[in-house]
Amino acid sequence: MRALVLEEKGRLSLRDIDLPARPGPDDVRIRIHTVGICGSDVHYYTHGKIGPFVVREPMVLGHEAAGEVIETGSSVTHLAVGDRVCMEPGIPDPISRASKLGIYNVDPAVRFWATPPVHGCLTPEVIHPARFTYRLPDQVSYAEGAMVEPFAIGMQAALRAKIKPGDVAVVCGAGPIGMMVALAALAGGCARAIVSDFSAPKLDIIGAYDGIQTVNLAQSDMQTAVSAATDGWGADVVFECSGAASAILGAPKLACPGGTLVMVGMPVDPVPMDIVEMQARELRVETVFRYANVYDRAINLIASGKVDLKPLISATLPFAESIAAFDRAVEQRPSDVKLQIRVADVR
Amino acid sequence: MRALVLEEKGRLSLRDIDLPARPGPDDVRIRIHTVGICGSDVHYYTHGKIGPFVVREPMVLGHEAAGEVIETGSSVTHLAVGDRVCMEPGIPDPISRASKLGIYNVDPAVRFWATPPVHGCLTPEVIHPARFTYRLPDQVSYAEGAMVEPFAIGMQAALRAKIKPGDVAVVCGAGPIGMMVALAALAGGCARAIVSDFSAPKLDIIGAYDGIQTVNLAQSDMQTAVSAATDGWGADVVFECSGAASAILGAPKLACPGGTLVMVGMPVDPVPMDIVEMQARELRVETVFRYANVYDRAINLIASGKVDLKPLISATLPFAESIAAFDRAVEQRPSDVKLQIRVADVR
Amino acid sequence: MRALVLEEKGRLSLRDIDLPARPGPDDVRIRIHTVGICGSDVHYYTHGKIGPFVVREPMVLGHEAAGEVIETGSSVTHLAVGDRVCMEPGIPDPISRASKLGIYNVDPAVRFWATPPVHGCLTPEVIHPARFTYRLPDQVSYAEGAMVEPFAIGMQAALRAKIKPGDVAVVCGAGPIGMMVALAALAGGCARAIVSDFSAPKLDIIGAYDGIQTVNLAQSDMQTAVSAATDGWGADVVFECSGAASAILGAPKLACPGGTLVMVGMPVDPVPMDIVEMQARELRVETVFRYANVYDRAINLIASGKVDLKPLISATLPFAESIAAFDRAVEQRPSDVKLQIRVADVR
Amino acid sequence: MRALVLEEKGRLSLRDIDLPARPGPDDVRIRIHTVGICGSDVHYYTHGKIGPFVVREPMVLGHEAAGEVIETGSSVTHLAVGDRVCMEPGIPDPISRASKLGIYNVDPAVRFWATPPVHGCLTPEVIHPARFTYRLPDQVSYAEGAMVEPFAIGMQAALRAKIKPGDVAVVCGAGPIGMMVALAALAGGCARAIVSDFSAPKLDIIGAYDGIQTVNLAQSDMQTAVSAATDGWGADVVFECSGAASAILGAPKLACPGGTLVMVGMPVDPVPMDIVEMQARELRVETVFRYANVYDRAINLIASGKVDLKPLISATLPFAESIAAFDRAVEQRPSDVKLQIRVADVR
Repeated sequence: MRALVLEEKGRLSLRDIDLPARPGPDDVRIRIHTVGICGSDVHYYTHGKIGPFVVREPMVLGHEAAGEVIETGSSVTHLAVGDRVCMEPGIPDPISRASKLGIYNVDPAVRFWATPPVHGCLTPEVIHPARFTYRLPDQVSYAEGAMVEPFAIGMQAALRAKIKPGDVAVVCGAGPIGMMVALAALAGGCARAIVSDFSAPKLDIIGAYDGIQTVNLAQSDMQTAVSAATDGWGADVVFECSGAASAILGAPKLACPGGTLVMVGMPVDPVPMDIVEMQARELRVETVFRYANVYDRAINLIASGKVDLKPLISATLPFAESIAAFDRAVEQRPSDVKLQIRVADVR
Repeated sequence: MRALVLEEKGRLSLRDIDLPARPGPDDVRIRIHTVGICGSDVHYYTHGKIGPFVVREPMVLGHEAAGEVIETGSSVTHLAVGDRVCMEPGIPDPISRASKLGIYNVDPAVRFWATPPVHGCLTPEVIHPARFTYRLPDQVSYAEGAMVEPFAIGMQAALRAKIKPGDVAVVCGAGPIGMMVALAALAGGCARAIVSDFSAPKLDIIGAYDGIQTVNLAQSDMQTAVSAATDGWGADVVFECSGAASAILGAPKLACPGGTLVMVGMPVDPVPMDIVEMQARELRVETVFRYANVYDRAINLIASGKVDLKPLISATLPFAESIAAFDRAVEQRPSDVKLQIRVADVR
Repeated sequence: MRALVLEEKGRLSLRDIDLPARPGPDDVRIRIHTVGICGSDVHYYTHGKIGPFVVREPMVLGHEAAGEVIETGSSVTHLAVGDRVCMEPGIPDPISRASKLGIYNVDPAVRFWATPPVHGCLTPEVIHPARFTYRLPDQVSYAEGAMVEPFAIGMQAALRAKIKPGDVAVVCGAGPIGMMVALAALAGGCARAIVSDFSAPKLDIIGAYDGIQTVNLAQSDMQTAVSAATDGWGADVVFECSGAASAILGAPKLACPGGTLVMVGMPVDPVPMDIVEMQARELRVETVFRYANVYDRAINLIASGKVDLKPLISATLPFAESIAAFDRAVEQRPSDVKLQIRVADVR
Repeated sequence: MRALVLEEKGRLSLRDIDLPARPGPDDVRIRIHTVGICGSDVHYYTHGKIGPFVVREPMVLGHEAAGEVIETGSSVTHLAVGDRVCMEPGIPDPISRASKLGIYNVDPAVRFWATPPVHGCLTPEVIHPARFTYRLPDQVSYAEGAMVEPFAIGMQAALRAKIKPGDVAVVCGAGPIGMMVALAALAGGCARAIVSDFSAPKLDIIGAYDGIQTVNLAQSDMQTAVSAATDGWGADVVFECSGAASAILGAPKLACPGGTLVMVGMPVDPVPMDIVEMQARELRVETVFRYANVYDRAINLIASGKVDLKPLISATLPFAESIAAFDRAVEQRPSDVKLQIRVADVR
């Protein structure tokens, strides 16, 4: 099977590789249509590792995928050949302690696409457990289906936040994940979201959505902006999506008394937090690790039109140009939010 | 001061009546612009009582109001003369046990506009505590401001439901409150709402909103519809807004395992509930009594454009025609959702 | 394998029956030491069915069990031969939608010991999934281990109640489950529990525990008692464990504003509930269906001495006298809370 | 009125001072019986300030008090002369935004005993709002009543933790507050608490309670201890009560997946937190600021015998020896947990 293979740090090939051929009784076989490129894919390409996960063997990249069911295992009942689907890339041990509790995202045994040593999905066909494969309604395109994975992180953040209808949100950082969080927060009940970043092009993209106010940190102070927007009370929920030490230190001051701080950004090292400031407002802090039980919710919101992710798809390249696509992703053009690869084109 | 006075059951007058003239230090004086007519106002008119609340003395009607601040008490700091505002009609004892807990809506000492023996606000000027008076942003009209009160009940239902982003809601009953609940549920994070009623005109009005699916109970079975819409899983949240015994009995079957049932409708007498059916799905049931701490949230959602209540204002009549407005409300025309009275016109 | 078999309604045999002999890779084989008799076992004996579950083939009874691991499947790591254990009797489909959400108790595919057509555990050896088999600390006896199952229902009720430290609880009904609920509520953070029943012997048993106040409904009115005990405010949590229509109707009046009502008792038919009364206090109502993820918590509380279930074990009979034990259970002696059968004696 | 007055940093007098003499309509006058010495009282004595709160005028110390009602304001109904009571020392603005929400502890307008410029209660009589004055049951002594204030912080921590029955808790730091937290956690539903400190005398005191396991950090590693005590899973709730940077950095590793971290200790400056470690377990972090709505709960638990604070009262000195008592408190003897002053003795 042809696949985009990360041979080692810095070297990609589009070549044939042996992958599983037959679904087990609870699996489906899927013809991949579209795969999005995630920052983690790019990071494995440029650095060969993320934290403890090191690429030691050639590994197929890609974990944001949508496609068509072309075969179903013998025990699969809720999916049929021809179904248009997207896939949750992390597969936990179904009988682990975390899975029993419903928090399968924190199961240490999770096997996750394109996380060494597990192959990803940038290949024309994959085998996947049916229970982590979700049908797309007719009005949701494959391209949108491949956006469900990054949006799921925004959904997890919105769920953990326990948004109350009419909340005012702050989102620190307008990278792809910050944008996903802002849209999930709005769809999830916030009245509006104040999004900050130093990049004007990014702020222009997310600022084009209804309900978003942007603050360019190169020109304005976030605390002043939030205070003005909330009559001095502060935001109900602050989503920290930048991972930047200064943003993390200042985040508590943006929240209202009794408010919530959601840590989405992942600073590599420990960073100083102002605990007394958090206590003075008696904040609750939530953390986010991937997602669990949100794919159906995400698809519901996209299908109903409450969330439109299409403006965030910056370009779509054919499978044959996968390496070029990754090299463009490495550039980190300010106006690129999400690059996608249309895999089905090579068939 | 001129006012719409319910003299006794069945008899209204538009006449002068003595009302408080000066705000206390924590109060504001407000020139009333618009007042909506609520079913409870109509019920006092037609029945002279609601449960234990009996009209024994002439009482000014009306509790859904917006207007302009024309005087502020000496301690008021967050409001100024000229502010456009709407008012929360129930005033609790600020030092009661319920108030201390933040659930002032269930304070037995609440004094509520147009609930005997407390006068309402269908009069050109009222005195009101500043802390229950909320500024309207420029983009929210007085007519919308007067809709905040009924919408607040929808907000309270949505809050109590603890909606998770992407939930599917069911709303049983498309009366004014059912409509408010459906809109609050959508704004509050639901992906879509399935609204049922026997009245086609009502379903047409609410069905015109994005995200609403309607089920006419004269033609279709709700359980079948919900099952079809949710792949047989059931709705995450069922809002019971009809108060009808049959709807209440059948409501648990519409919910998914682990789902939520919110009791908004108020059946006069105890009604049978299928407890074993609720247990089999391990449902949580929430009840709603008026609202607390939701006005600012409601205004946020209206101001941001996430909720549009204007289509629910069926007609606006001048203060001089208040009695005619009430008589029209008594008719309960199927296409009338909310009638409003423009009080400022008489000045 | 010898077993206590319900041949059909009203007829028990202690006889040999074919049961699975070898554990699968994720299973363990357990030598059963003690089994408690549950009201449901007795109901199958006397009525041949419970709701839709009808005994059509001979079925081994018993689902409250503790014993010793005597063989482990090849993939089992957290248990070893010789471990003293108790077992959760309901086995869900690990890849069902409910299981993914962590609410495996409401998985419709659950297979539950001694629920037709699934055999129970009143037999010297059983095969059971390791993930639903829990090690008992040294200080917890087999007899206590066999009490974990009924106590787990109390734990589930206490969990669903979301008890806040220092809450005052009411428990309506002092049957075995009401007693378990009262003890779980106290261990779970309640300061005290007011338990009502018509049976003086039952009230004497539960009233001997610290923190329990009893109300004999033959002599006293519960609403008066609760009001007196709470300065007129009402109880924070009302656990309805009687299943009696009158108790269910009156339960809301026992709760404080903003309080919680937990429906544990299972009335066969729909019963009238006073919805307006629940709304006036804005109660939350929780329902309970078996339990999920509580066994380890229950064992923790028993092991630490916070819960002492030994006084509720009224008598222990040898396996050879199982039929006599069931016949005594049918008598429902007021002073019998839990009868247990010591299975290991027959070895 | 005689009082213990902090004249300035480092200088105490027991002398007469003018204090309010008459209760307002919602107040009571209380004869003070016992007052505990808090670390904050001592800190004002030794440093003259705590953060932004600077002693600029002579100030009466003390905020942990119990006494007897000797006069009631005209509107007070729930208290009577002769009632034995304890008092919540922080009085919020009842009509502030935070108070309306029920989180009056984070009201910036709170006036708190012995927090400059507000006088404390180390004086024979005080005037206090009745709504923050709580009756003590007969079985609760004045000495215990004066312990309710520090215990209330433990209660707030236990409430914010949202303890589930049977949770395993970790408490980092065995100072007075750490001890209060450990006892509140146990009473609030935890099965057991693992308490760490470097001080053997402190660990001996708290380790004498049932359900407490102690870890002396001078000899043992906390992560090893917690892992051993929880089969490698981690604690459900970690209460950080030390304020020490190393403890804060290591705290996430002590928690189980999906667990909770409660920040009680107050490090003066920002300290590094390991956000990725928190995310890997998807921890929730709660912060604590004083307390709200917990006094009645605390009294309930003490009255029912679930919490025994008497062993934590290390010595009781007469009012006349107040200065000596403070000087002993300054010494910070390892075996002194709480020193109390019996004020009534001087009358």
